[in-house]
Amino acid sequence: MTTARKNYQRPLDIRNGRIDMGHGAGGRAAAQLIEELFIAAFDSEGLRQGNDGATFEVPAGHRLVMATDGHVVSPLFFPGGDVGSLSVHGTVNDVAMCGARPLYLAASFIIEEGFPLAELKRIVESMAAASRAAGVPIVTGDTKVVERGKGDGVFISTTGIGVVPHSVDIGGANARPGDAVLLSGTIGEHGVAVLSKRESLDFETTIESDSAALHTLVAAMLAAAPGAVRVLRDPTRGGLATTLNEIARQSGVGMMLDEAAIPVLPQVDAACELLGLDPLYVANEGKLVAVCAPEHAAAVLAAMRAHPLGGRAVRIGIVTEDPHHFVQMETRFGGCRVVDWLSGEQLPRIC
Amino acid sequence: MTTARKNYQRPLDIRNGRIDMGHGAGGRAAAQLIEELFIAAFDSEGLRQGNDGATFEVPAGHRLVMATDGHVVSPLFFPGGDVGSLSVHGTVNDVAMCGARPLYLAASFIIEEGFPLAELKRIVESMAAASRAAGVPIVTGDTKVVERGKGDGVFISTTGIGVVPHSVDIGGANARPGDAVLLSGTIGEHGVAVLSKRESLDFETTIESDSAALHTLVAAMLAAAPGAVRVLRDPTRGGLATTLNEIARQSGVGMMLDEAAIPVLPQVDAACELLGLDPLYVANEGKLVAVCAPEHAAAVLAAMRAHPLGGRAVRIGIVTEDPHHFVQMETRFGGCRVVDWLSGEQLPRIC
Repeated sequence: MTTARKNYQRPLDIRNGRIDMGHGAGGRAAAQLIEELFIAAFDSEGLRQGNDGATFEVPAGHRLVMATDGHVVSPLFFPGGDVGSLSVHGTVNDVAMCGARPLYLAASFIIEEGFPLAELKRIVESMAAASRAAGVPIVTGDTKVVERGKGDGVFISTTGIGVVPHSVDIGGANARPGDAVLLSGTIGEHGVAVLSKRESLDFETTIESDSAALHTLVAAMLAAAPGAVRVLRDPTRGGLATTLNEIARQSGVGMMLDEAAIPVLPQVDAACELLGLDPLYVANEGKLVAVCAPEHAAAVLAAMRAHPLGGRAVRIGIVTEDPHHFVQMETRFGGCRVVDWLSGEQLPRIC
Repeated sequence: MTTARKNYQRPLDIRNGRIDMGHGAGGRAAAQLIEELFIAAFDSEGLRQGNDGATFEVPAGHRLVMATDGHVVSPLFFPGGDVGSLSVHGTVNDVAMCGARPLYLAASFIIEEGFPLAELKRIVESMAAASRAAGVPIVTGDTKVVERGKGDGVFISTTGIGVVPHSVDIGGANARPGDAVLLSGTIGEHGVAVLSKRESLDFETTIESDSAALHTLVAAMLAAAPGAVRVLRDPTRGGLATTLNEIARQSGVGMMLDEAAIPVLPQVDAACELLGLDPLYVANEGKLVAVCAPEHAAAVLAAMRAHPLGGRAVRIGIVTEDPHHFVQMETRFGGCRVVDWLSGEQLPRIC
């Protein structure tokens, strides 16, 4: 493509330009936007192929994993990230939570007419940086434009594929009574960061989203004790409480948590109190929950703590036999309460 | 999952219910919507796994193809299809245009608060039917909800993966001077069908979208003359004219078309005249363009005509040497004109 005549009337005016309906119509304006903004930033072999899809090799002897996630976070930019980096981390993590090594991403953009090209460029470049840092290239994509008032800035749906060896069997239905429940670090930062930005709240310390790609942490955990990790999940929407309830239901088990063991940053705790939120239900974008065989929990935990994204990893509870599949928690005050699913909306458009 | 206690307070009220923000919050309401509506309709092994992604085997000895497409068509329902069936056909076709056999789909829904559950069900069931008919299951998905006025009913981004044998090399850069340009049938129905519905125009005959999955047509073409087909592309947004210009630019060639050979239904011709549209620029969703080696063009054309989706397949032109990469056309009146890219927006939100 690089040798072909481009024939655009003028370069994109990134500084002052805005998305118009023509950028989504599939003609010359769309081609120019894709080349000068998206392909320039993502710079992958797949995109340079310039076809309707990307073609690539995958290593033999593996099963394939595919995960997709729409990102509609509001506001688009928040402390610690933006919709671009989030859309990479969210999908890389969904693939990694199947025990897989993420290989490639596809990205579908739905952009509102009038959206400033400068902001789009910032988002796309953040996305490109997150993809490069994770080592997971964006190989194919699509861009649509909707009229002003029919969207909200930018929505990004990313789809990831990865490979998992046949020897790895990780899934939400694999937890067994007696298993250890591990958490990779403090909870609640992402949700509080987005909400405080949305509501223009100023806390003394800026709370940053924990948004991060967790696949190398997962790889370290799986290597530490092959076969030991049975369930992996990232507690995003609905928070830790909802994620643990999902696992309990899928596996047909209960759980008993230790409230005192669940780490929450003091500033997140304070912000949650102010906002009337329970950190257990607040979204995270750079944390994971693992259920693992009890005899290997110490080894897995040690591997987590040795990884930059697992420094505060802890054992937070145990899987129990429970025909009701309740997630229960011993409170700091010695009581015991049921930790239910999130009901209704606590934090809309958090990811 | 099926044996676990569901614990929903009441079943979804499909008839009168509407999407609320809670359906996107990742808690119990979201889980219920996903189970009772999406998993019930799509009914795939991947979704039943209930994990963050789907895991599956892919046949060895192939390259993988991945394609993604956002679908923002307006209106959501149009003669011959809806956003659900379109979102399957569009992505299946993108995978097929790489010469691949589509295997699996992922679907990301962005739904506007207040959207009627009954309409969502209709869309999801249409999507499920299209997926079953194509033999390409939806194995993983995601659902987000945005506030009223921040979306437009339903947007669906679908991502497909497929496999292509190492012996097949199809891409937009492969056209060579002398190659034949083939078209699988009449052009313009999809765009006119959507536009006439959008503008509430009543023509004497209802013009139906040609929306269809083209992968079996592609398979028949590739089998008819292995190695003969060099480029495949479906002329969607921007229409036939833009698609041919894309190929000409990617391959560094020109084209000479024969206007009289390009089939347009009389009612589409009439509607285009009324609406001030040129059928060459109107979107199709069930047609393809193929560039193939001239000595095998007759065999490929015969295979197309023998397929239900290629009955009106024709040779519409020839690839030429042209340093300017112009697509030109001999008109019905014996003249010759340049067929340029679509400039700006002709038909916004056509797919």
